[in-house]
Amino acid sequence: MQIAMVGLGRMGMNMARRLLKGGHDVVVWNRSADKVRQMQDEGARGAESLEALCDMLKAPRVVWCMLPAGDVTKSMIEELSTILAPGDLVVEGGNSYWRDDAANAALLAAKDIGYVDAGVSGGIWGLEIGYCTMVGGEAEHIMRIAPALNALAPEQGWKHVGPVGSGHFVKMVHNGIEYALMEAYGEGFELMKSGPFENLDLQGIAALWNRGSVVRSWLLELLDSALAKDPDLAGLKGYVEDSGEGRWTVLETVHHGVAAPVLAQALYRRFASRQDNAFSNRVLAALRNEFGGHAVKK
Amino acid sequence: MQIAMVGLGRMGMNMARRLLKGGHDVVVWNRSADKVRQMQDEGARGAESLEALCDMLKAPRVVWCMLPAGDVTKSMIEELSTILAPGDLVVEGGNSYWRDDAANAALLAAKDIGYVDAGVSGGIWGLEIGYCTMVGGEAEHIMRIAPALNALAPEQGWKHVGPVGSGHFVKMVHNGIEYALMEAYGEGFELMKSGPFENLDLQGIAALWNRGSVVRSWLLELLDSALAKDPDLAGLKGYVEDSGEGRWTVLETVHHGVAAPVLAQALYRRFASRQDNAFSNRVLAALRNEFGGHAVKK
Amino acid sequence: MQIAMVGLGRMGMNMARRLLKGGHDVVVWNRSADKVRQMQDEGARGAESLEALCDMLKAPRVVWCMLPAGDVTKSMIEELSTILAPGDLVVEGGNSYWRDDAANAALLAAKDIGYVDAGVSGGIWGLEIGYCTMVGGEAEHIMRIAPALNALAPEQGWKHVGPVGSGHFVKMVHNGIEYALMEAYGEGFELMKSGPFENLDLQGIAALWNRGSVVRSWLLELLDSALAKDPDLAGLKGYVEDSGEGRWTVLETVHHGVAAPVLAQALYRRFASRQDNAFSNRVLAALRNEFGGHAVKK
Amino acid sequence: MQIAMVGLGRMGMNMARRLLKGGHDVVVWNRSADKVRQMQDEGARGAESLEALCDMLKAPRVVWCMLPAGDVTKSMIEELSTILAPGDLVVEGGNSYWRDDAANAALLAAKDIGYVDAGVSGGIWGLEIGYCTMVGGEAEHIMRIAPALNALAPEQGWKHVGPVGSGHFVKMVHNGIEYALMEAYGEGFELMKSGPFENLDLQGIAALWNRGSVVRSWLLELLDSALAKDPDLAGLKGYVEDSGEGRWTVLETVHHGVAAPVLAQALYRRFASRQDNAFSNRVLAALRNEFGGHAVKK
Repeated sequence: MQIAMVGLGRMGMNMARRLLKGGHDVVVWNRSADKVRQMQDEGARGAESLEALCDMLKAPRVVWCMLPAGDVTKSMIEELSTILAPGDLVVEGGNSYWRDDAANAALLAAKDIGYVDAGVSGGIWGLEIGYCTMVGGEAEHIMRIAPALNALAPEQGWKHVGPVGSGHFVKMVHNGIEYALMEAYGEGFELMKSGPFENLDLQGIAALWNRGSVVRSWLLELLDSALAKDPDLAGLKGYVEDSGEGRWTVLETVHHGVAAPVLAQALYRRFASRQDNAFSNRVLAALRNEFGGHAVKK
Repeated sequence: MQIAMVGLGRMGMNMARRLLKGGHDVVVWNRSADKVRQMQDEGARGAESLEALCDMLKAPRVVWCMLPAGDVTKSMIEELSTILAPGDLVVEGGNSYWRDDAANAALLAAKDIGYVDAGVSGGIWGLEIGYCTMVGGEAEHIMRIAPALNALAPEQGWKHVGPVGSGHFVKMVHNGIEYALMEAYGEGFELMKSGPFENLDLQGIAALWNRGSVVRSWLLELLDSALAKDPDLAGLKGYVEDSGEGRWTVLETVHHGVAAPVLAQALYRRFASRQDNAFSNRVLAALRNEFGGHAVKK
Repeated sequence: MQIAMVGLGRMGMNMARRLLKGGHDVVVWNRSADKVRQMQDEGARGAESLEALCDMLKAPRVVWCMLPAGDVTKSMIEELSTILAPGDLVVEGGNSYWRDDAANAALLAAKDIGYVDAGVSGGIWGLEIGYCTMVGGEAEHIMRIAPALNALAPEQGWKHVGPVGSGHFVKMVHNGIEYALMEAYGEGFELMKSGPFENLDLQGIAALWNRGSVVRSWLLELLDSALAKDPDLAGLKGYVEDSGEGRWTVLETVHHGVAAPVLAQALYRRFASRQDNAFSNRVLAALRNEFGGHAVKK
Repeated sequence: MQIAMVGLGRMGMNMARRLLKGGHDVVVWNRSADKVRQMQDEGARGAESLEALCDMLKAPRVVWCMLPAGDVTKSMIEELSTILAPGDLVVEGGNSYWRDDAANAALLAAKDIGYVDAGVSGGIWGLEIGYCTMVGGEAEHIMRIAPALNALAPEQGWKHVGPVGSGHFVKMVHNGIEYALMEAYGEGFELMKSGPFENLDLQGIAALWNRGSVVRSWLLELLDSALAKDPDLAGLKGYVEDSGEGRWTVLETVHHGVAAPVLAQALYRRFASRQDNAFSNRVLAALRNEFGGHAVKK
């Protein structure tokens, strides 16, 4: 099929490559032109502007956005709403907040343009093994992009999960779970590193556990790989960013009254990993000094 | 090789089967004789008593214990210490507390009998795909049982992780992590069930995520399978047992000063799952009534 | 001073009483007239309608709202904006979300009516000991209501904490902390009830700890009192409601990247206290059955 | 009454002073003699050795130990068992693990010497306001030391809570709760410091909340005091020690199957406060790099 990819970052560029490999006619646009040229070299058609991109597609068009979530994506949706024509279709594949999808869809619907939200997992491995993709929207719209999804995802690796917003919602929960899985391995491996047996071969244990144990997983394969490169992770700082999805997941648990101690702790640990001398801890040190005369570090 | 399996419960019996399939000469003993007869039918040699079992093995003997952890295992080690001969070797493959291994080893070492502790993962799937096995002890002892381990484990699925006790220690951490992984999926799927999108196809999402997503894992495959049988898990009570390993993991984090919020929460959630009308919650209800006049349920 | 109290629920009625006791001229209004009559009997002037209430006050008027948070309060602010006159002042003393205060203030400011948000703590004890009150808004407005605050609060028991919204924000954090303090006592007392020493005199211990120990507090005095009435809290169901503030506090910690494991856990425990057979726990039971063949309860 | 105080650290010395103030005949011993001399100046009788201390007391003797928990206390109990006479009584008032009390008591009982365990709260404020004291042991023994307890504690500030060990057990839970209360305030105040309203007067808010709010407590009074000295706690490092009691409390919750998310989190936060570049966090950073190509800090 014919499809446009708007945004050629780490994710968008590799997705364009999978679409090309799948035999699709891919038109690309990016803020900086060098990446457009690079994809032209790889077989895509490059557009110099969004207007040009529209002209290069036959109606009804399909435009897949793969841009930073938030204002950048919002502006792009607005801009596309003025450029695209009735019957066209926008797929928002970035890490948008699912609560923003309804507004995006409404904006486009006013111009009779369709909207699909797609939550995309797979990271840098997606190019090779495919992107696990959760899509939300109307069945008719999703049927239209099925050929592209088939190229992007591994076999049986995409799914229409519900109405507009549900693709990003399911992807959000996916990431909330991901944080907690990572934290679980982190805590367990720290215990093995700090516990009673010195010099346990952590890499070997990660590899072992991937052979028939209950905790085997893709994350554990990645940990095996990371430990193989640097057995003590000595070259790393334990400074852990978080993206919107982990936070939104916790917000959602609060909104819906779902007890989620593990999901929330995993998020808070990331916050704390980036904090030096937290005020909370200073309060404790101050209180210990007040009631117990315990020495404090200055 | 020649090896005895003592204890033919769910784990021990299937392990005896894998050993037989691996071409080993397996002598079995069990408290109740019917399981011994069953394994005889499958090709094992059955012993009527521990003394008989010893006689049926050529020295130096290898006896693998697969019994309930705690007193049952402790008594068996003591009994074996009086029956076996210098040079023999005991493998404790049950869910023993790693802190008990040193005493077991010492008891046997006094009779010049060797001791290996083996943490075994794989559950009811081990028969088919093999048991991931973590062994602790002396290299010479472990080399001696390598043929048996090769039959029990999947390819590259066993490892000598350290001195006596370390096999059970690593298995303990494995289970601690397992609890937290399970809890992470549990919370995430509850959020999808309770959240803004009704009737999400949870089984389909579990299956989907196993296709290229970051959270794919064996546990998620099992969840896919469980949801396929009962999409709402309506036939289940959310009453979750815990075994020693999860508790011991948390104790260890406290002993070693390792912050493990996610591992501990996963354990506490299991405690709470078995509690009705927790006193802690009654304290809260009472306090709300005291300061706010809030109605309480009787 | 002259002041109107709108809303005569548990909080509003007792606050009107403290204002009367402080010698103020209090005009009251309530949706149901019986409470208005009751306060008339106690010395207040009763209004039959909001318009009548306005007429009974000399300009510039002060109207204190003490209504259920959310839509009821929002509607009242809107209605007051059409009835009051420039120069008048509204105090919103209910449990409003601090993020709603700006809109309330803006709505009234468009009519040149002032707005103060007041977070009020003290529960049913406020009548006797005074209401600890956190107020947000412009200094000029707060100065105008100082005589009322002096009557409502204990000595030095009110404070202008910042601009509009900050009163409710500080009260929100207050309640977030309150949840965690309650949970801490709840868990500790459950441990004493379930631990190795049988029949500990929990009421006596609560009373004791209020005599010079580090954990003495007003909540612990209330717990002493509750346990004195019912030593096992046997007559209570551990079903614990939560109001908006505890949830908003957790949302705020996520928005601001503040690690708050204890505040969040206290909230989640309340969620769980109201849940029977949580889906999360059913997921765990299902998984245990899948990998270990562990029996499940139906 | 006549009583010996063994150990003149921060706690022991001030407790000797309260005993003197209560009109008791206090004999003191300390490893370093200067503190003995100091207490002699204040009216105590000083002993040059434990044997001398025994000689200076009339039988039946009462010896109160106030030494560092663990080996130091254990050695002292052993030494006293060889010096004291049948009918004498030892009070262990240090921060001993309650599980050690039974052995202490048995050791002394073999010599017909009594044993009482006393959990003492109050910190550096105890001198002035008295020490809240939880005692475990036989009623006859506790009756014998009642005059001393009356002098040490505030009015109604001591209690016989149960058999040997229960005094330290109750004190242990007290400290577990204390950790969580402190953490609750810490998190709440950090949110106020980091939240949407800049420059909130945190000291003023702590003072305010102690005036009639639900969260008023002694710890909050201490926080008020600490913030009055250093409003931003800028001179402090958020490095928070933990003593045995907090850890033992968590161990106990695991042993007894009591869900205690808040108590455990408070402990873990202290662990984390002392850690730089935790391995757990490095695992997360490594994983993010592996699956997402996310930059890591070296």
